[in-house]
Formats: sequence, structure tokens, C-alpha cells
Amino acid sequence: MIKVGILGATGYAGEEIARIILEHPSAECVFYASRSYAGQRFSDIFGNFRGLIDEKYDVLREPSPDVMAEECDVIFTATPQGYLSSCLTQDILSKAKVIDLSADYRLKDIEVYKKWYPGIERNDDPSLLSEAVYGLCEINRESIKDARLIANPGCFTTCSILTAYPLVAEGLIDTDTLIIDAKSGTSGAGRSAKVQNLFCEVNESVKPYGVTTHRHTPEIEEQLGYAKKSSGGDGSPILINFTPHLIPMHRGILSTEYASLKALPDGTYPDEEMIRKVYEKYYGNEHFIRLLPKGTWPETRFTSRSEFTDIGFTIDERTKRVVMAGALDNLVKGAAGQAVQNMNIMFKLPEEEGLDRVSAF
Amino acid sequence: MIKVGILGATGYAGEEIARIILEHPSAECVFYASRSYAGQRFSDIFGNFRGLIDEKYDVLREPSPDVMAEECDVIFTATPQGYLSSCLTQDILSKAKVIDLSADYRLKDIEVYKKWYPGIERNDDPSLLSEAVYGLCEINRESIKDARLIANPGCFTTCSILTAYPLVAEGLIDTDTLIIDAKSGTSGAGRSAKVQNLFCEVNESVKPYGVTTHRHTPEIEEQLGYAKKSSGGDGSPILINFTPHLIPMHRGILSTEYASLKALPDGTYPDEEMIRKVYEKYYGNEHFIRLLPKGTWPETRFTSRSEFTDIGFTIDERTKRVVMAGALDNLVKGAAGQAVQNMNIMFKLPEEEGLDRVSAF
Amino acid sequence: MIKVGILGATGYAGEEIARIILEHPSAECVFYASRSYAGQRFSDIFGNFRGLIDEKYDVLREPSPDVMAEECDVIFTATPQGYLSSCLTQDILSKAKVIDLSADYRLKDIEVYKKWYPGIERNDDPSLLSEAVYGLCEINRESIKDARLIANPGCFTTCSILTAYPLVAEGLIDTDTLIIDAKSGTSGAGRSAKVQNLFCEVNESVKPYGVTTHRHTPEIEEQLGYAKKSSGGDGSPILINFTPHLIPMHRGILSTEYASLKALPDGTYPDEEMIRKVYEKYYGNEHFIRLLPKGTWPETRFTSRSEFTDIGFTIDERTKRVVMAGALDNLVKGAAGQAVQNMNIMFKLPEEEGLDRVSAF
Amino acid sequence: MIKVGILGATGYAGEEIARIILEHPSAECVFYASRSYAGQRFSDIFGNFRGLIDEKYDVLREPSPDVMAEECDVIFTATPQGYLSSCLTQDILSKAKVIDLSADYRLKDIEVYKKWYPGIERNDDPSLLSEAVYGLCEINRESIKDARLIANPGCFTTCSILTAYPLVAEGLIDTDTLIIDAKSGTSGAGRSAKVQNLFCEVNESVKPYGVTTHRHTPEIEEQLGYAKKSSGGDGSPILINFTPHLIPMHRGILSTEYASLKALPDGTYPDEEMIRKVYEKYYGNEHFIRLLPKGTWPETRFTSRSEFTDIGFTIDERTKRVVMAGALDNLVKGAAGQAVQNMNIMFKLPEEEGLDRVSAF
Repeated sequence: MIKVGILGATGYAGEEIARIILEHPSAECVFYASRSYAGQRFSDIFGNFRGLIDEKYDVLREPSPDVMAEECDVIFTATPQGYLSSCLTQDILSKAKVIDLSADYRLKDIEVYKKWYPGIERNDDPSLLSEAVYGLCEINRESIKDARLIANPGCFTTCSILTAYPLVAEGLIDTDTLIIDAKSGTSGAGRSAKVQNLFCEVNESVKPYGVTTHRHTPEIEEQLGYAKKSSGGDGSPILINFTPHLIPMHRGILSTEYASLKALPDGTYPDEEMIRKVYEKYYGNEHFIRLLPKGTWPETRFTSRSEFTDIGFTIDERTKRVVMAGALDNLVKGAAGQAVQNMNIMFKLPEEEGLDRVSAF
Repeated sequence: MIKVGILGATGYAGEEIARIILEHPSAECVFYASRSYAGQRFSDIFGNFRGLIDEKYDVLREPSPDVMAEECDVIFTATPQGYLSSCLTQDILSKAKVIDLSADYRLKDIEVYKKWYPGIERNDDPSLLSEAVYGLCEINRESIKDARLIANPGCFTTCSILTAYPLVAEGLIDTDTLIIDAKSGTSGAGRSAKVQNLFCEVNESVKPYGVTTHRHTPEIEEQLGYAKKSSGGDGSPILINFTPHLIPMHRGILSTEYASLKALPDGTYPDEEMIRKVYEKYYGNEHFIRLLPKGTWPETRFTSRSEFTDIGFTIDERTKRVVMAGALDNLVKGAAGQAVQNMNIMFKLPEEEGLDRVSAF
Repeated sequence: MIKVGILGATGYAGEEIARIILEHPSAECVFYASRSYAGQRFSDIFGNFRGLIDEKYDVLREPSPDVMAEECDVIFTATPQGYLSSCLTQDILSKAKVIDLSADYRLKDIEVYKKWYPGIERNDDPSLLSEAVYGLCEINRESIKDARLIANPGCFTTCSILTAYPLVAEGLIDTDTLIIDAKSGTSGAGRSAKVQNLFCEVNESVKPYGVTTHRHTPEIEEQLGYAKKSSGGDGSPILINFTPHLIPMHRGILSTEYASLKALPDGTYPDEEMIRKVYEKYYGNEHFIRLLPKGTWPETRFTSRSEFTDIGFTIDERTKRVVMAGALDNLVKGAAGQAVQNMNIMFKLPEEEGLDRVSAF
Repeated sequence: MIKVGILGATGYAGEEIARIILEHPSAECVFYASRSYAGQRFSDIFGNFRGLIDEKYDVLREPSPDVMAEECDVIFTATPQGYLSSCLTQDILSKAKVIDLSADYRLKDIEVYKKWYPGIERNDDPSLLSEAVYGLCEINRESIKDARLIANPGCFTTCSILTAYPLVAEGLIDTDTLIIDAKSGTSGAGRSAKVQNLFCEVNESVKPYGVTTHRHTPEIEEQLGYAKKSSGGDGSPILINFTPHLIPMHRGILSTEYASLKALPDGTYPDEEMIRKVYEKYYGNEHFIRLLPKGTWPETRFTSRSEFTDIGFTIDERTKRVVMAGALDNLVKGAAGQAVQNMNIMFKLPEEEGLDRVSAF
């Protein structure tokens, strides 16, 4: 059994890792850590775990990556930005693998990081950032296999990238025209006590936030930039508009994406069949990505509590644009599930192990 | 007192007209009509009206525009597409004003209508379509004053047009790049018994629908086309991508809109201040349109159950786009409220009468 | 115009008072006070008020009952338990009427108060408690007329008492068997930042709380005790079981109440007709209480955002019990609306003024 | 592998059986039947199953218990009342086990059945009713083992009975005083297209229904009657008040139950410790029933999508009543999960197999 530690176990992503690991046949959580709730029982905070956790692990402990590295094979860090980079060391990584759900190791360019995450001092060994692998499983599977440190992608990011990736990588769309309009359930806002996330503030309303400034923007741009480069792009950066919206539901992200098709050498535009073939080339063998048939659009409920990403698309003949939409569960494929998928890959387990669930909506 | 008839009183828009008229100091509903519920008490179906409706009007009657025209000064038709155009006559209009909440008289070009509303046979006098005034109050106020027949705008349409109108009319954005991503509460789907609108199908999910094919698209394109023409456009049509999404809430529409800024003659781009001035030029004196301060974005809850449209915007210096967002209540400003606002204008009442409510969220 | 001050204007009840007063033809809010938000604009916190509040009053001020008494005719205090009794004076009451939405003046027996509100030190003049009138309008209308200090009833309390009152007052039920099972929307839990009230904690769940210990219990018992005494009861106290539940909705309270019928002198039990007559005796002329016809049960949505209380009942021949249910909006009739109804009575205005709204669900 | 057939696969309970069976290691669904959707793909209706169902079984077939009995080892019938009893035969039962989620075989007394289910003609062999075992697993486990026909309990029923059972069976409460106030998510209302179950009718409201007349009442009374008899009761029937309420959530039932404690021979009343011991006697070894610690009350979210029933209680010293509350997922323990638990028992599988999931809220 893989010994798992969860740092930040009482947030929504941390709790979700705990849930998935509890049902995982090859892993066991032996260390629940939380700064705010240390000393309390995990199963008192999350009553769904009552009676299901080994007594000796049920009490939440103070976070300590060093101690966790001694007792665990892998540490999941579901922590605020800047926490992990303030304490991660080569020594820790020599003892345990680390899968980080924060943004600390997602952006390779430290200058870009500083611009989008101002005020966060990081004093980690720069080689750690170089070593970290961006854990978007379907795209970076090979690099993940031997990684010690995974930068687990953001929830909006996973959804937004997967939806557009094949078309960017094959050079079918004009990346300058890419617009991503995303809708997220409220668990994405975290479990800290804020007035703006109270039931009565969120219920029966929808609003955009972080317009032109959301931190997942550069993450999407960097990763789609790699795809563009792989298509023989000129190396110029991708700049997109990304707008997240808060929706009165618990789970789920939907990314609706718009881009102008590039004319083919013969002056015509890619048709639905060509687009579909490109998606199938990239995702045809992916268990957790489902390309929907023509005329069917993703609904977040059909991915809820599962590891699946559902993708649909159409071409608008009038405007020569492709409209794509991807859906996933922000806490599963968008956080905890992908983290476990990364664990499975790193530990040479079947990639679906512990994750092969039907959405229960 | 203006005598009001509501045809289709048991749908969500019909009920909302009834509610607003009941609280309106200068109007009274004297004819509630419904095909499905004729013979039943209106206040038995909508318990909120219990005890508040004059006994003699409380029983729903069979729809009959001719009879209604005899008994009413104004008829609101909240009916399926094609109903009104199947029975409207000059005789009716000579007796009562008609405010139509369906799409029958919204599109001036009958060929465009046939394309987007296929299968609907209309046998009305073509002069009626010419006569109908598109009842977007803030834009067409003057024409509304003397109208006999109002085509009350669609809910998505009102929100989408108002949000972009000033920038189109002033030629600040490239209309070829305009993308409208809209989110709607479920009352927009109507009150008929359909599995897809059951609580358990809608709750905890979000989905796009009608992608590239939604019928409000040509309505937005036609109206923004007039704005473009007024800015000295070349008369070429506007073609947009409009994508509605279903959100698990009762009321509210949010339109998030993206467009590339047009370079000014000096090669620079419009800045926030210039954009704001343009919005203020058009809406500065409009009671029911609120331009939000920089950094503030609309939330549908703050417009809920009110006639207000809230609009926010920002400029993305990186992509040279303006991102706009408008919010309103789809049943009020997006349907019943605007219908009453039209009535007020037509009957020379103060435009805010009966509509001057704070949102109660 | 009555000059109104709201102390605690940024809670849900405070905001609701502001909304009702803004639409009230004879009153105007001239003092918005909030400890937490002093110095900020009220309309920045509650965007629904944007543009609707007189500039000179829009900035929230530090709470000061003394200053408010100088500037206002009536002060609404929507404050934590113990606040008002820590600072209310005869001097304040000599200048302004006070309508208190907290529990400070609801329980006449100070020992009962101390037992259910332990740890709250009150140093107010005991004569204030004697003077305070329990502002359940339909029951205590006469006393309210000349009151200076109103103890505005709790939300559960208003609903629970009104539902059972006539049957207790007429001695038709065995008060020892009265059980009240209440369900409340989440706004009843207030607007402070607590994890337990986050959207993701409340949504898709229902739970009981304060079982056998909720503070509205003694308030219900005291008031129903007066009713019992009026029916010729022996003066023994009423002890009930009252269980509130948290429901994933914004507004609304439903009280389902059970009690054994008392046998009549002839050994038979009261029938539906007799019960109905008793309800009509008490509420037949009450504008804001609607007795539903046989077979119809209250739904909170039909009272939402209105001042109405809807009551239904049936008799179970098998168990000789009456089952009653009452519904109201916890923020309106259960708080702000009733507070304004009290104001109307105290200031000799028509009781419905500013409150005569249809529920908008 | 156990070959499973689901009759009524496109309702919420049917879909839930399909989901659980798909994840069950020892069973496989080989026959999805639906009257309304025959010929369509199951995975087109429920997109969460897309790609997960064996192609050859994915198309829904016409219901035919006879054909299903040939092809399946067990048939789950999630069908309207009266369907199964109109077609069930000894021949079918000789070939396949039947687990019926309708009420057809729940009430042993056919006269009681006729009274509460008027108008349903049943022409089945009366011996079938005698043979049927009421599948409340924790209570009737031994009889279930060898059963061919299971009457799977109702959702309210399972929750209501389990919550009170030990106290009734041990004679600690006066069953004449038992009142059950239940709250249910909307999936309990089924998946047929009815206006009353539309999102906009259910959202933001709560209402009682079936007051004194709900069909689960006699089912609870019969089963608790057996418990009472086992405690040495006098054989008199139990008559309760049972009131269900519709809550704006998808899943979950909460039963709040009230009963007067019976005085012990020494004149004192049972205390918390005694009550707790009784609960532990009955449920201490039950995996799927969790008795909550003092002061903790069930929340439906912690049982959601799991097979668990959570039970809490307290004693009110003032009123000498015990207040109990039980929570479960109406589609899992209240329907599909318990049906599979019954299957596990009947097929001698570990009782938890395929059901051992943590609630994912």
C-alpha cells in the first residue's frame, strides 16, 4: 500500500483527495494535516468519513512536510499559494514524492509567476521549479512517470487546455482569437469563511470575476504555447481572454471556447469531420476524455464526482469560428482526481485505479 | 385606470406581468387568459395572488384576442411563437394596443424570420410587421410612444444589445469580433412540463444550448446592425457568435461580451475613460441602466425582480479587447417589466411607474 | 416623512429594512449604521441600491443610538443579542421610537432570559423591559399603537405562534402535545462569515439544529402561554418541542405543527369546520394572514418577499390530531416587514403602507 | 457475474441501480428496459454512462419480465405502482429473483393496500404477496437470504423505521405519540414531466404534501407494528402522523421523529445512556448505520450517494420526549442501494460489496 499524506486536508480539495484515497485499492492515507484544525478528528469535520477512517490516523496533525516525508510515500499539498515553495527541499523530495495542488510550481517562468502572484516570497531551490512536471496527465504522461514533484494543474486550466489543445497543437485555429469563458461551481472558491461565499450571497446569482486578471490565465497561455510551438508555431506567446464566472452550484466547471479557424492552404476552412479527427487523434484512446457526438454538448452533471472530461464542439459556418465546450468536476479532474491520476502514473499503477467511477449526479 | 389583458397568463412571463400590473397604480388586469388553465382560478395556480385579485377577474378565460380587444386597452401576449401572427388583425389593433412578448414581430426581414423560425406559418397582414415597433425602450423610446403594436424584445436580446450598443453605435469595436456568451436562469425555459427542466435535471449543472443556432441571434444582429449603420457603417450585416447557457437559478441573465477595439486614427486604442464616456452618453440619463464603476462587475442578484440592467466593462491591454458584462432579470427587464415600461411609454405615463423597485434578492 | 435609522444595516434583516423603507411612501432612511462597514458606501455593499439612495445618506456611519435618536424618528436595531440592552436609555426613547429586531426585550421574565441567553450582561433600566411591547402585530395591535419600544418577534416565533394561536386561545388543542417542526432558509443564519453557512456547506443538505435548545422556544412558549391563559387555562406554563432545520434556500420559514385535539364536552372532537371558524374569527379580517382552503398547504415561495403568512391545516381522524402549517418570509414578516408594520401602527399610518406587495418568487 | 436486468431504467431509481451495478465487482447489467425510451441508447439519456456500457447492452429494450427472467439472474423493477403485480408469475420467479422497488408487495394486508392504493387492480397470485420479503436489510436480513421476491422499502419508510425501530422494539416510547416529520429531496418525486417538479417550482421553496394521507404511512405503521409486537405489545396497531416535505435539493431524506418516553417501573424515565445502549444493541454491528455522538445531528449531505443511514437523538428533560433524526440518500439506501444490498444478501455476497463508498457531497 502506498502511504499517503494530505497537507491541507480540511479544504475541499484535501477532503476530496481523502475520499478518493479511502476508496483506492493500493493507497492509504496515514497522515491528515491541517493548520487550522490540528488536534480535531477529521471525521468530526467531515461526517461522511465517520467510522471509515482508521482510528490511529483520524486525528488531524500539524502540517510538517519533513515529518510527512518520513512517514509517507507521497504527499499531496492542497495549500495556499506560496506555502510549498517556502518549505520544500531536496531532502523532502528524496524521501517522498510531492504532488502540489497549489500554483507554486506551475509556471516555469519565474518572472511571469511574480507578475501574477505578486507579494509571494519564495526561497526554494530554483532547481525545484525546473524539475517540477506539469501534471496534466493526458498531455504530459511520459514526463510524469519519473517525476518526483508534480505541479498539479488548476481546475479552470485543466478544463480550458484540454478543450482546445488538439486544435492548437495541429495549428487549426488562430490562437490570437481564442476566448475562454468559464463557469465554475462554488467549491472552487475554497472553504474559508468569507462573506462572499455564503449561501445567501452565491445562491440565485451569477457573476464574472477576475476579468482579464485571473491567475489561471498565464497557466493556460504557457501550456497552450507549448502546443502551438509543437505545431510549428513561430514561438510568439499566446495571449487569451479568460473570464471565470461563479455559478450557484457546488461542483463543476464548464469552459466555452471560441476561436477563428485558420484557412487551409486551399483557402477552405476545416470542417467538422477534420476537427473531429484531430480530437480523436489526441483523445481517442484516453479513458477519461470523452468526445461527444455531433449536436451533444457537455453538462457538468455528467462529469460530477468522476474523473471524466467531456468535450463537444461545432463549427459556425457563418463566422468561421469553432465553438468548443469542455466540462469536468473541478474537485476531481480539476484537482484531487487528477492528483491521484498523477500518483497512479508515478507509482506505475493502472492509471484508472481508484478513479473509475460513473458520475453520480 | 388602464384595462389590461394578459394572454398566456400562466406562464412565467405572464404571471410576472400580472404581478407588476397588480402593483401598478394606473393599470388593472381585467382579463387573465390561458388556453391550458381556462376555467381555473389564477390565484389557485399562483398562490401568491391569493386574496389579492378582484373576484370577478380571478377565473382564467379562454384566449380570444377579439374579445380581449373589446374589454381591454392593452393586451400583453405571452404566447408561443406563431400564435399572435396567426390571429392578429387591424381590427384588434384599432381597439387595443398589443404588446407581444413572443418573437412574431421582432425580425423585420421575413426571410430571416422564416430561416430561424422554420415551420411557422403566418397569415397576418404584412403591414403589421412593418408597423410593429421593436420595444427596446432605451433605444427606441420615440417610436414606441405612438406605436400600436410592440415587439417586446427577447430576454437574452435585451441584455446582449444594451451591453454592447453604445460601443457599436460609436464605432469603437470591430463588430466582426463580437462574441456573446450568455448565462440564463431556468425560468427562461418556460413553465411547460419537460423532463429537461425538472429540478433534478437542472440543479447542480450548467450546459450550453442552441450553440450557433439560438433564435435570439438574428434579433441581436439586426438591432446591433442598426447601431452599426448609425455609426456610419458600410451596411454590411453583423454576424456574431451567441451562446446561451442554462444555470441552476430561477431568474437572471448575464451576458459576457468580447470584442476587439478598433484602432483610432492615431493608431492608439480607446482607453477606459473614452469607453466610459460613450456609455454615459447613451445611458447617463437612463433610470433603469446602471453603469458600474471600474472594477465592479454585475451580479444578477442585484437586478433580480427589478427593471434594472447593470453594465460593467474593462479593457484588456494585452489583447486589445474590451470585455463587457450586462445583467438583468430575464422575467422583468427581459420580459414583463420591459413590456410594462413600453405600456407606460405608450400611455404617456411616467416611464418608471409601477417599476421603481429595488431588487430583492 | 418619517426619518428612519437602521442600526446593523449590513446584515440581511438590516438590508431588508432598507429595501422596504426605500419603497415606503411615508418614510425615508436617513442613517445607515454598521460597526463592521462604517465609512463604506451602503450601495457598494448592496449593489441593488446603487443609484437609489440619496448621496448624503449612502455612507455607513458608526452605530450610535444617541446620535441616531437626535436625527431619526424611529430606530430599527438589527443587532446581536445584548447590544441594545447595553446602551438603551430613557433619554433615547424620549427622542425616538425604537424597534428592536434582537431578542433583548422579547422575554418578560428576566430569569428565563438569563437561562436561554447565558453570558449576556444587561445593564439597562428594568423599566424598559416592562415597557417594551411584543410586536406581533396581529395579536398585540392595540398595545403597539402607543409603544415607544417594540420587541420585534423572531422569525420562527412569528410563524410558529401565528399558526397555532387561535386553537390555543380557544382551548381546542392540548398544549402539552404541541410539537413544532420548523424549516428555515439560510438567511436566518445571518450574514457573518462562518464556514457552516458557506454555499458548499448548505447546498444539497438539510439538518436539524438547536434541537430542544433553540432560543426561540421560550419566546413561543411565553406568547402561547398568554393565549392559553386567555382561554381560561390554569396558568401552567406551556412546554413544547421546537426543532428548526436549515434548508438550502435563501428565504422562507415553514412551521409544521402537531397537537392532539381536546375532546369537547360531548366527547366528540372538533371537526374541520369548527377549526376553520376559529381561524376565521382571529384572522378573517387580517390582511396579511391568509387561511388556505381545505387541501391546500402553504409553500414558502408564495409568501416570499411579501408580508403574508399563509396557514393551512387538516384533522387526522385516525390520530385525533390537528396538523397545521404556516409559511412566511423570514426576512419580511419574520423580521424587517413586521418591523415596518409595527412602525406603521405606531405612527398611525395605514398598516399595509409600503408592505402591500405580491410575493415575487 | 450476476446478470442483472433493470425494468424502469430511465427513472432516477433505475439509473441509480445502473450506476451501482456498473461499479459492482460481481454483477453486470445485461438488460436495460424502459417503456418510454425503448430503442434509445441508455448512455444518450444519461451522459454520465457514455463510453462505460458494453455496446451490446446500451440500447434500451421494451420491458418484458418474461424475457428478462430468461436472460437475467435478478430483475430490479423500478416501476409505477401496480405494474409488477399485474404481470408477476411463479414462472418468472422460478427463473430469476425479483427485487421490486414499487409498493406492490410491501403491505401484507391486502385490505390496507386497497385503501391506500385505490384504483389499482392486481391480478397476481396471492401467494406471491405472502412470499414476498420486506427488504429492510438490517431488520429482516435472515428472511432476505432465501427470498425470491423482495419488496424493497420506500425511501421515507427506510429512514423513518430505522430511526425509531430500536426504541419501539424495546418498548421505551409510547407509540401513540410518535410523530414523524420528514424532508425529502426532489428526486423522490420521480423523473416524469410534471409542472410541479420543474426547477422554478421547487427551487427556493419548501412545502408539506400528502399530509395525513401519504402512502408510506401504512408501511411505517406495519413495520413498526412488528417491532412493537416483538416488545410484548398488546397487538394494537400503531397509528402515526407522518408528514413529508419537499426540499429544494436533489437527494436526501431527513426524518425528525418525536415520541414521549414511557416511564420505567420505578417512575423515572429512560436517560440518554439507556437510549444509546438500545441503539447500539440493534445497530452496533451494522456497517451501514451510524449512531452519531451526543450533540451531533445528521446532515443529509454526509450520507449523500452512500448507503449509510446516520441517526442522532436527544432527550428533552422538560417534555419527557425523545427527539430522533435519521438521514439517508433516498436514491441509495432509500431505493437502489438497498436493492443492491438485498441482492448481495440473496446471492450470498459480502453485504457491502459494491456499496462501500464514502459520501461525496
